[in-house]
Amino acid sequence: MPTIKREQWSRHFGKWFRRVLIEAGIMDYRYPVKGMAVWLPYGFKIRRNMLQTLRNLLDATGHDEMLFPLLIPDTALAKESEHMKNFEGEVLWITRGGLTPLDVKLALRPTSETVIAPMLKLWIRSHADLPRRMYQIVNVFRYETKATRPLIRMREVDNFKEAHTVHATEEEAEAQVKEAIEIYKRFFDTIGAPYKITKRPDWDKFAGAEYSIAFDQILPDGRTLQNGTVHKLGQNFSKAFDVTYETEKGDREYVWQTCYGISGRPIVGMLAAHGDDNGAVLPPTIAPTQVVIIPIPYKDMEGQISEACKILVENLKRADVKVELDQRADMTPGAKYYYWELRGVPVRVEIGPRDVKQSQVTIVRRDTMEKQTCKMDDASKAVEDMIKTIMEDMRLKAWQWMNEHVHRVGNLDAAKRLIKHKAGIVEVLWCGNADCGHKLEAETEASVLGTPEDLKEKAKGNCVVCGKNAEDILRLAIAY
Amino acid sequence: MPTIKREQWSRHFGKWFRRVLIEAGIMDYRYPVKGMAVWLPYGFKIRRNMLQTLRNLLDATGHDEMLFPLLIPDTALAKESEHMKNFEGEVLWITRGGLTPLDVKLALRPTSETVIAPMLKLWIRSHADLPRRMYQIVNVFRYETKATRPLIRMREVDNFKEAHTVHATEEEAEAQVKEAIEIYKRFFDTIGAPYKITKRPDWDKFAGAEYSIAFDQILPDGRTLQNGTVHKLGQNFSKAFDVTYETEKGDREYVWQTCYGISGRPIVGMLAAHGDDNGAVLPPTIAPTQVVIIPIPYKDMEGQISEACKILVENLKRADVKVELDQRADMTPGAKYYYWELRGVPVRVEIGPRDVKQSQVTIVRRDTMEKQTCKMDDASKAVEDMIKTIMEDMRLKAWQWMNEHVHRVGNLDAAKRLIKHKAGIVEVLWCGNADCGHKLEAETEASVLGTPEDLKEKAKGNCVVCGKNAEDILRLAIAY
Repeated sequence: MPTIKREQWSRHFGKWFRRVLIEAGIMDYRYPVKGMAVWLPYGFKIRRNMLQTLRNLLDATGHDEMLFPLLIPDTALAKESEHMKNFEGEVLWITRGGLTPLDVKLALRPTSETVIAPMLKLWIRSHADLPRRMYQIVNVFRYETKATRPLIRMREVDNFKEAHTVHATEEEAEAQVKEAIEIYKRFFDTIGAPYKITKRPDWDKFAGAEYSIAFDQILPDGRTLQNGTVHKLGQNFSKAFDVTYETEKGDREYVWQTCYGISGRPIVGMLAAHGDDNGAVLPPTIAPTQVVIIPIPYKDMEGQISEACKILVENLKRADVKVELDQRADMTPGAKYYYWELRGVPVRVEIGPRDVKQSQVTIVRRDTMEKQTCKMDDASKAVEDMIKTIMEDMRLKAWQWMNEHVHRVGNLDAAKRLIKHKAGIVEVLWCGNADCGHKLEAETEASVLGTPEDLKEKAKGNCVVCGKNAEDILRLAIAY
Repeated sequence: MPTIKREQWSRHFGKWFRRVLIEAGIMDYRYPVKGMAVWLPYGFKIRRNMLQTLRNLLDATGHDEMLFPLLIPDTALAKESEHMKNFEGEVLWITRGGLTPLDVKLALRPTSETVIAPMLKLWIRSHADLPRRMYQIVNVFRYETKATRPLIRMREVDNFKEAHTVHATEEEAEAQVKEAIEIYKRFFDTIGAPYKITKRPDWDKFAGAEYSIAFDQILPDGRTLQNGTVHKLGQNFSKAFDVTYETEKGDREYVWQTCYGISGRPIVGMLAAHGDDNGAVLPPTIAPTQVVIIPIPYKDMEGQISEACKILVENLKRADVKVELDQRADMTPGAKYYYWELRGVPVRVEIGPRDVKQSQVTIVRRDTMEKQTCKMDDASKAVEDMIKTIMEDMRLKAWQWMNEHVHRVGNLDAAKRLIKHKAGIVEVLWCGNADCGHKLEAETEASVLGTPEDLKEKAKGNCVVCGKNAEDILRLAIAY
């Protein structure tokens, strides 16, 4: 696999990433339509576990999984004017059914607000029908004209996990935004992908939202990846689609809405946060195989070795560990190590002649590549403990790396220099004026991510652009 | 719910079905695009269990779950000429990306043979890469011009479960067809939906296949529903897409392919096979809730009643039964009975003051509506046993009903009469000549389903059309 060393990732991350996708059997992006790719069997299992992780979190917090149609009549897409303005140049349009031109053009959903709104109008009558929390996991489409990249910038995003909620009051909608942020934190913590939570500036919020809050991760090349977003829609869509409810007093009010979504990008974030020169390193929470056992064949001892392997498999299965015994006869142990390291299996157990003689097993951690031996009787327990340790260590290491790549600077020149060196996220003081924000973007050639939602501190000092009193902190980065 | 009695279903099945879909919270088909619908939370859970049932069967028989893109370039769809001829008038076409016309028109997949073939060409080099068995669960699209019907005839089929296999030899492909039939039998048996297995006539096979075998179910209105199909593709697609492999001897050969798929229709089949005047009756294998416990409140005994309910919930959970305790305070027990009966929950347990006093519970089977009491200590075991009995009884009853609706007749008049009376499937003797088949269709105004794959007997007698020696049995029905 990659001969690109992790320390060189700042320059070659994209190359490393594409090779891991194909060589580890995750995704094949050679499909003959730009921006569309095929999930390979191993990648599909990773995807399955990833989706299940979020499903569990959403199911446990009162969200109903549902499924809405893919196609949106142009008339529905046009109802919320900001939304349409943003999306009409970005969506794929169906204009023909068979050989017949369609009267009403159909858009492939880029997101589902305008799919759901007409149904809400049918379902919601009174305050007793509220709140409603729902989600769906679907493919969405954007006609990207920029260069596409596997999982990062696709024309078909095949696992968009979008939640939509409806509330009687603005306070409830605000509370739901906070709840969504907590759910997403738990999700990203489960896969060990670190994040900065930032409120996007007004000029970069979701089309149709009052405001948008995003989870950004810094990738090894210093660029940020938007991994998930939470939006307060307010009453923008309910007014456009006339979705009202009867209050307890008998008045009619427009409903309040939020929505939040996560695309396929967290898989990029997860691979980037933990990967190394030998390939993927999967967090045990997501790995389709958590432990692989590799017998080291030795003449006349095959029976004993195989027996020892099988006992450990049984013990691990009983402890709910996802274990696989690699007994392929046409492959050397070395080739198997390479195979499973590339795929990022968290723990490898080797059992060979010396191990059997000494009633021990050899255990190798994928994240650190450290090797240790332990008594055969203790092996299952040792592996279970190691899985927990690995998960914690991986998360800590990833967070530490990210924190080292967030820089607070006091003037524009320092910001420009850091951005130029692809140093990650740069934080500066800001007066709150959009003009200064745009100037910052122009001067640094970076994007304004927005203002921190994960910091308690107040801005003290002067705006790095105009020198006036700072109102807030502003984050800048080269964003994917 | 439906005041339409089951004995009237022959005339009103469609009406009953649409009402159950909406009122039981399964599906809302009022979406503003024809032939597209919304899965409601309860329906989505049924769908989830249905998909998981098939996933388990496919995973256990060496199929890898994968995911391929939705969109097909017109050039790829056109490569297999029969396939294109059939589908070009039936697919939805994307001709515009944003505001830009597309150079290559993109079709929304009606099925994925032409999506997969170009990837096979990249993946398959030698006999060592074969066989390959894969499947995906996706949305597919057909531009239906006939009247659409929820789940039966949709423009978006949102849970098409399509498997594709690739083999080195024709024998292996033939064996795979047989294996697929066995897998589907197990699937339909699990949901208790009966079937007749029939080889479609040449003039009605899948476009691009050598032959097609279908699972048909008779619905209460006497019409048949095609619930699943298995196709031998032979080398038609591998020749069109030039997918070859190197044999052990070093020659190059085209690969052999099969494919098989099941749409959302088995949900119709399941509801139709078991439903009654009170709504849906779900098989325990699929029911999101297998047992509902309803406390009958009684003054000063609330504590004891609630306690008894909770103990039973715990015991059933320990036995892996999907149980729900309905403690809604704003609903009478009677309203709850109605609610859960409509949704088809297999077992209802009532616990009221008399039950508590006598240390018993009252158990009601949804399929027969029979009521019985049993000692509280035995309740969990009794419910577990009842779940098994219900599943067997439901399957048997559904099969018996279907078998009563398959008729063997000796002449054309009898066939015409039965078809006219919507009596189900009619079997006649046939010479094997396509002309006689077409005449049968014209005379009876029915469709030829094809020749039995589930009967061992040989045809003895004369063709009901031309009077020549019969070669085979032919099945006729009014098909959905």
